[in-house]
Amino acid sequence: MPRYALLIEYDGLPFAGWQAQAEHPSVQGAIEAALARLDPAYASGARIAAAGRTDAGVHATGQVAHADLARDWDPFRLSEALNWHLKPAPVAILSAARVDDDFHARFSALERRYLFRLTARRAPVTHDRGRVWQVLNPLDIDAMRAGAAHLIGLHDFTTFRSTMCQSKSPVKTLDQITIDEIEIPQGREYRFRLRARSFLHNQVRSIVGTLERVGAGAWDPARVAEALEARDRAACGPVCPPQGLYLSGVGYPKDPFGAG
Amino acid sequence: MPRYALLIEYDGLPFAGWQAQAEHPSVQGAIEAALARLDPAYASGARIAAAGRTDAGVHATGQVAHADLARDWDPFRLSEALNWHLKPAPVAILSAARVDDDFHARFSALERRYLFRLTARRAPVTHDRGRVWQVLNPLDIDAMRAGAAHLIGLHDFTTFRSTMCQSKSPVKTLDQITIDEIEIPQGREYRFRLRARSFLHNQVRSIVGTLERVGAGAWDPARVAEALEARDRAACGPVCPPQGLYLSGVGYPKDPFGAG
Repeated sequence: MPRYALLIEYDGLPFAGWQAQAEHPSVQGAIEAALARLDPAYASGARIAAAGRTDAGVHATGQVAHADLARDWDPFRLSEALNWHLKPAPVAILSAARVDDDFHARFSALERRYLFRLTARRAPVTHDRGRVWQVLNPLDIDAMRAGAAHLIGLHDFTTFRSTMCQSKSPVKTLDQITIDEIEIPQGREYRFRLRARSFLHNQVRSIVGTLERVGAGAWDPARVAEALEARDRAACGPVCPPQGLYLSGVGYPKDPFGAG
Repeated sequence: MPRYALLIEYDGLPFAGWQAQAEHPSVQGAIEAALARLDPAYASGARIAAAGRTDAGVHATGQVAHADLARDWDPFRLSEALNWHLKPAPVAILSAARVDDDFHARFSALERRYLFRLTARRAPVTHDRGRVWQVLNPLDIDAMRAGAAHLIGLHDFTTFRSTMCQSKSPVKTLDQITIDEIEIPQGREYRFRLRARSFLHNQVRSIVGTLERVGAGAWDPARVAEALEARDRAACGPVCPPQGLYLSGVGYPKDPFGAG
């Protein structure tokens, strides 16, 4: 059966997360329902696999999944057909590509990239409601960068993972955290970009929630290093809400969508 | 009675436009309802005036209105109180400022600035649904810029105004049209920025809809000059939809909100 990789964008707001669940709308469920219109296997329980199982309310601009189909499809026609059947759900197939049978969206991935958008201003957000985490006061970006620097590299991230995390090991290499600041009307937006081979459950939200405490002046940057050293979930700052988080890209040995 | 200027942001999607209407939700109506919680005059029909009466579905990041209140308010407390009473409408008072009695949000304005966001890609938009106008194919930005250049300056804009326009004269000076292109996942976004002392009804949407035809290759850039010369509404390209349009700023002899 020919295998296809799908590059997927979605608004996480109406979904209980990526993963299909019996009682709640999921992104995976929406895409499998669209696939079922093209391929009977998906009407009788075939599943797709994704690079990142995003939580409820988390968005994606570069999620990747793969699907095995009974017949050959022109990749462009496949993406068009899926987008047609996905309407009106806020899920879009940005690109589809034929891949080898040994490509696996999750296990072949070498890198995941996340973006977290944090808005600081007094007035409520309007256009970005459900798309950013809002705090009321501006943050100290230099302090946040100093705090973030302690987290780069190979560490035991026990402090920064959910107690529900199913990963066998808490040891991960965090390759990048950058923080940019952009002007918005009467406020500021901070954009955190994180990159790693893989992340623990709630790792990004635990890190950003902790760095916000640093930016607000409640934590000294050095306390981030102490929290990491503690290897204790209780040492973590507050986990920030999901609506600012975006899975922005997944890296493979060879980009299935042809951009490199 | 002390007069206050309000800097206002809103998502136009749920509203029938700025202007209060008996049967439909309006931005003006939402703000006047919030004011009525603070000042009895607004419960008995007092009105506010705005710099730009945006149409249904049109957004703002920098609308300005003024209101006369019975008592003195600390401007910051006024904006906080209004934002509290505006919830959950997607309308935010970004700033409030005490102004002189001769300040008028509409008649004192020297300049209006608009942003139009146009997304070009095959896959449907998800996060920006209702916030951009989408076309399917990339546009030729150089051709659009060449077409736009014909519109800069003092002209009779009869071609580019609605037949419903109530302005006494179709002669206006358009000070600026710039077009920028930004990368989005598997597509491009074009950002048109227009600046003038005042605009005719549907002028921005008529101009952007015409320039899109130029960018798509359906119109030669020179045809924009011919359309302008014709002074004939029938010579205009298609008027584009409202959801990509943002009133992004209003200029006054002295900025009431203190930024210069």
